[in-house]
Amino acid sequence: MTYVSVSRLRVPAERADELITAFRARVGLVDGFEGFQDLEVWQNDRDPGELTMVSRWRDRDCFKAYMKSREHQVSHDRIAPDLDAAIKLEKLEHLHVVAQ
Amino acid sequence: MTYVSVSRLRVPAERADELITAFRARVGLVDGFEGFQDLEVWQNDRDPGELTMVSRWRDRDCFKAYMKSREHQVSHDRIAPDLDAAIKLEKLEHLHVVAQ
Repeated sequence: MTYVSVSRLRVPAERADELITAFRARVGLVDGFEGFQDLEVWQNDRDPGELTMVSRWRDRDCFKAYMKSREHQVSHDRIAPDLDAAIKLEKLEHLHVVAQ
Repeated sequence: MTYVSVSRLRVPAERADELITAFRARVGLVDGFEGFQDLEVWQNDRDPGELTMVSRWRDRDCFKAYMKSREHQVSHDRIAPDLDAAIKLEKLEHLHVVAQ
């Protein structure tokens, strides 16, 4: 079944809008990638500096291939260095959809 | 933007399949509910007793109305009491989609 990658990111609350804007402006290099289904970014209502990036894939191998790709590198490199430095990856989870 | 409710559930690992089966057999009373978009259950690849129930709604008020509804009560009451007693709600999160 569908593989889900969940990255829990933390930024200072006052920089959350900047990170959200960067996500909204993403070039979408991932969208055409083999096995990619969709990507969303969620903001915690009670903790605005906590942003959760959720991507869904046909299987985990597709996700791993993307993570090693030039497209991922290019996408990541578009984040301004000082914003990038302010982002902490708190948690990275690997899950599968088991029911709908 | 879309409201997301995330419930982190824990069951003893040996009962995970039972809970997944119950989710798969759900009667779908939520599906026609005002503002409901979709529902998924995710299992953590590295911690099979951790199940995450993710539902997406037009807005938080729709979710709150559902939680108070007879349909929610009926859905919940279908879970076998001894399975229900084995489920711990570890975390309940309220989020909004901010980018796609």
